[in-house]
Amino acid sequence: MTTIDLNSDLGESFGRWTLGSDTELMKVITSANVACGYHAGDPGVMRATVRLARDAGVAVGAHPGLPDLAGFGRRNMAVSAEEVEDMVLYQVGALAAIAATEGVRLQHVKPHGALYNMAVKDRSLADAIAHAVRAYDARLVLFALPGSALEEAGRAAGLRVAREGFADRAYEADGSLTPRTRPGAVIHAPPDVIGRAVRLARDGVVRADDGTDIPMRVDTICTHGDTPASHDLTRLLRAGLEADGIAVAALGTAS
Amino acid sequence: MTTIDLNSDLGESFGRWTLGSDTELMKVITSANVACGYHAGDPGVMRATVRLARDAGVAVGAHPGLPDLAGFGRRNMAVSAEEVEDMVLYQVGALAAIAATEGVRLQHVKPHGALYNMAVKDRSLADAIAHAVRAYDARLVLFALPGSALEEAGRAAGLRVAREGFADRAYEADGSLTPRTRPGAVIHAPPDVIGRAVRLARDGVVRADDGTDIPMRVDTICTHGDTPASHDLTRLLRAGLEADGIAVAALGTAS
Amino acid sequence: MTTIDLNSDLGESFGRWTLGSDTELMKVITSANVACGYHAGDPGVMRATVRLARDAGVAVGAHPGLPDLAGFGRRNMAVSAEEVEDMVLYQVGALAAIAATEGVRLQHVKPHGALYNMAVKDRSLADAIAHAVRAYDARLVLFALPGSALEEAGRAAGLRVAREGFADRAYEADGSLTPRTRPGAVIHAPPDVIGRAVRLARDGVVRADDGTDIPMRVDTICTHGDTPASHDLTRLLRAGLEADGIAVAALGTAS
Amino acid sequence: MTTIDLNSDLGESFGRWTLGSDTELMKVITSANVACGYHAGDPGVMRATVRLARDAGVAVGAHPGLPDLAGFGRRNMAVSAEEVEDMVLYQVGALAAIAATEGVRLQHVKPHGALYNMAVKDRSLADAIAHAVRAYDARLVLFALPGSALEEAGRAAGLRVAREGFADRAYEADGSLTPRTRPGAVIHAPPDVIGRAVRLARDGVVRADDGTDIPMRVDTICTHGDTPASHDLTRLLRAGLEADGIAVAALGTAS
Repeated sequence: MTTIDLNSDLGESFGRWTLGSDTELMKVITSANVACGYHAGDPGVMRATVRLARDAGVAVGAHPGLPDLAGFGRRNMAVSAEEVEDMVLYQVGALAAIAATEGVRLQHVKPHGALYNMAVKDRSLADAIAHAVRAYDARLVLFALPGSALEEAGRAAGLRVAREGFADRAYEADGSLTPRTRPGAVIHAPPDVIGRAVRLARDGVVRADDGTDIPMRVDTICTHGDTPASHDLTRLLRAGLEADGIAVAALGTAS
Repeated sequence: MTTIDLNSDLGESFGRWTLGSDTELMKVITSANVACGYHAGDPGVMRATVRLARDAGVAVGAHPGLPDLAGFGRRNMAVSAEEVEDMVLYQVGALAAIAATEGVRLQHVKPHGALYNMAVKDRSLADAIAHAVRAYDARLVLFALPGSALEEAGRAAGLRVAREGFADRAYEADGSLTPRTRPGAVIHAPPDVIGRAVRLARDGVVRADDGTDIPMRVDTICTHGDTPASHDLTRLLRAGLEADGIAVAALGTAS
Repeated sequence: MTTIDLNSDLGESFGRWTLGSDTELMKVITSANVACGYHAGDPGVMRATVRLARDAGVAVGAHPGLPDLAGFGRRNMAVSAEEVEDMVLYQVGALAAIAATEGVRLQHVKPHGALYNMAVKDRSLADAIAHAVRAYDARLVLFALPGSALEEAGRAAGLRVAREGFADRAYEADGSLTPRTRPGAVIHAPPDVIGRAVRLARDGVVRADDGTDIPMRVDTICTHGDTPASHDLTRLLRAGLEADGIAVAALGTAS
Repeated sequence: MTTIDLNSDLGESFGRWTLGSDTELMKVITSANVACGYHAGDPGVMRATVRLARDAGVAVGAHPGLPDLAGFGRRNMAVSAEEVEDMVLYQVGALAAIAATEGVRLQHVKPHGALYNMAVKDRSLADAIAHAVRAYDARLVLFALPGSALEEAGRAAGLRVAREGFADRAYEADGSLTPRTRPGAVIHAPPDVIGRAVRLARDGVVRADDGTDIPMRVDTICTHGDTPASHDLTRLLRAGLEADGIAVAALGTAS
């Protein structure tokens, strides 16, 4: 039976500000990427999010980002590999401590925003992330874009890598994501998104921008929950996968 | 044979700014309280400080503070017990992760500055700190002012508590520290400081402001290293203790 | 004809996070207290808020707060008078610069949250705020709780002070606000809030907790807009004032 | 008579951390670039630095940077032109307010670190800076690398631009600075630095890496003061200029 993980970014509130419909989303996804205080999240939000995930049976992962609260970690920064390794460790350790006191062990690490995007292309930053994860806990799963420097770095470090697909994003023929600045880069129609999710999960294939089908084997599909519409879509997406006989389940950690 | 620990705050640099003579101080002390990024320190500084301590055979502890970089964690803030518990966990976890990848396990936790001072008097904040430490790792030693709410909270939580003395600070007859705003609150003359350290370590006694000797059993003595003078004094203090036959050694963790 | 100003805190979004229904609220209020980046707001939010106010004909004031983004400036901090004077100047100057490039001159300054509350009682902090405002621009109006140290400081500094009333808060017989922790401290029923606003504006009187009417002359009434309900209430409140023949208008600056 | 300005970055302390020998440097330079809180500096440091400058007869300028305290504003960030315009205004306004209360009007604006470097090459960011300065106060002088996008943007905005030279940096034949990563990029020998400063100021010429003399007319020379050695060098440099009959004086503002 085909199995796929559904992951989403959560715990992105900060202090007085709330973001996302975490409670609702937890009913649908199987892996939660929890912000660790650098681009979003604070210790109280982190604890609340871990509790929500635990009570909903959702696996918890760290979602470390760049130290850019004002930019939500979405602005590339010229950070060194050494800085990245240390900041990832810092954030993963902080979340792991809070999670441990709630009886939760981390399942995975997924870099956030600009850190993720830079690690897709920059092997030295990707290695820094992989080294940090490996050094801290070799059982952690590293989430990565298929074919990216991050996937390569994770495998080179001996980590289990979860290849991540995006059902609501257009792909280029070379397997990279169509930049958001291009028209059609984001797919909004629910049937299209669900259809792409099913093909990603069941067939390991996605239709690229040029109309050709390209291979894209993935272990987890990224969904969004920061708007009511996106949350509804995630619910439909899960239902669509299950209607197609695909099991939706977390990845678990290596034993 | 009498044994005493010498602790000092280290790793208080941040980014471009350096503070303290950590390298020199590591040759003299036995326990390092390492800043965790909230009032000072950053992930790179934390790693460098842990390495220095490890290579010098100095035990490493977390020194969590209030989220007040501009105020160096020295300004009291009306934080809730819940906020304190979460921010302590966050900081201890972050340092522990970095330390673990350097082969170092944390020995202790000592709250910093205003957080320490508030926890001396406020039992609910003290409990929050003790709960965070206990929940994260019950083997960690909690540093506390003798007779304080923090000591009580640590013992109530079942933690090993290290009672901390200050050889360069004046004490009131009730065992509290003379406020820094009062003349004579800080003792500068090296012979006086060394003499008080020896009495604290060997006899468990300190002379109070009113001239009476009061009992003050301590497990660790706090020293300073943020000025060349204070660093020299710490060296003399250690030599003075050893000349008196007192062993200077870290506390170790509970087994 | 009786005239009253309606003020509200706006521009409290930050980066990715939005807060409040500023666009709607601007249609109803006459003075906007704009966050200046310490407790909320960022340069982009500040500019957008000034534009909204200008286009709606709403007067703009600075709403400086404590440097506590995680706590939204609501946690008391042991800041010195000197620190307060400098941080108020910093924030007022930053907003004034952005406002000037949008063709807007600031009308007033209202300290935010814990800074406001501390300045109600602590004359040295109140003086620091008043000195900063006076030194920067003597034409600015200082918003203050009637009878507070902040009002006294403003008058002593020669500033025009706008006495501020709260239609949705209970008052003690001595004219102070009933602490929020007490039941009944916040008044929710729209007719009650409107009735109290009318009495504050028209009669300079408010009914205190013990049932007696106490004098409370005010120049401006604080309203809230961070929830849809509160925004609706503000609209009703303005309509209620106008139905009673009270003009709702900004204060203007001294000439 | 030839006249040249000597500028230096000052006010780079932050909270508990001190940096630079500002007091000594103020005796030698003629224009101070004062950090504005984003990459260094805090309101108290800003006020103290303005006072130092005023008392020493040194002109004061704003030194706005990227919002990256941990990286000292030296890490490139993918900020938008709109974000840059607003953050420059914010910082310039904050410093101008503090300076005004000390009786000082700003002379100039010099972007700091990565913001400066990005604006050398990126015209849209350069325009954003120039627009912010122009909109705030058209009399302010904009400091810029000769031939850079920043110089062009300043002139296009109608600002007075001060062309800046670096006596301790190697130049390429095209007039750009040799990257710091290349050997010989920084010139340390005092006689060499002084000789280059004299040629920059008197002849408008600098010897490039390839041994040819290239034209380099400058209005101000940047010096450093963050180490005792660099401060001594600045003193020698000024003496060398004056010994050669060159007047060292601030630029003044347009009338």
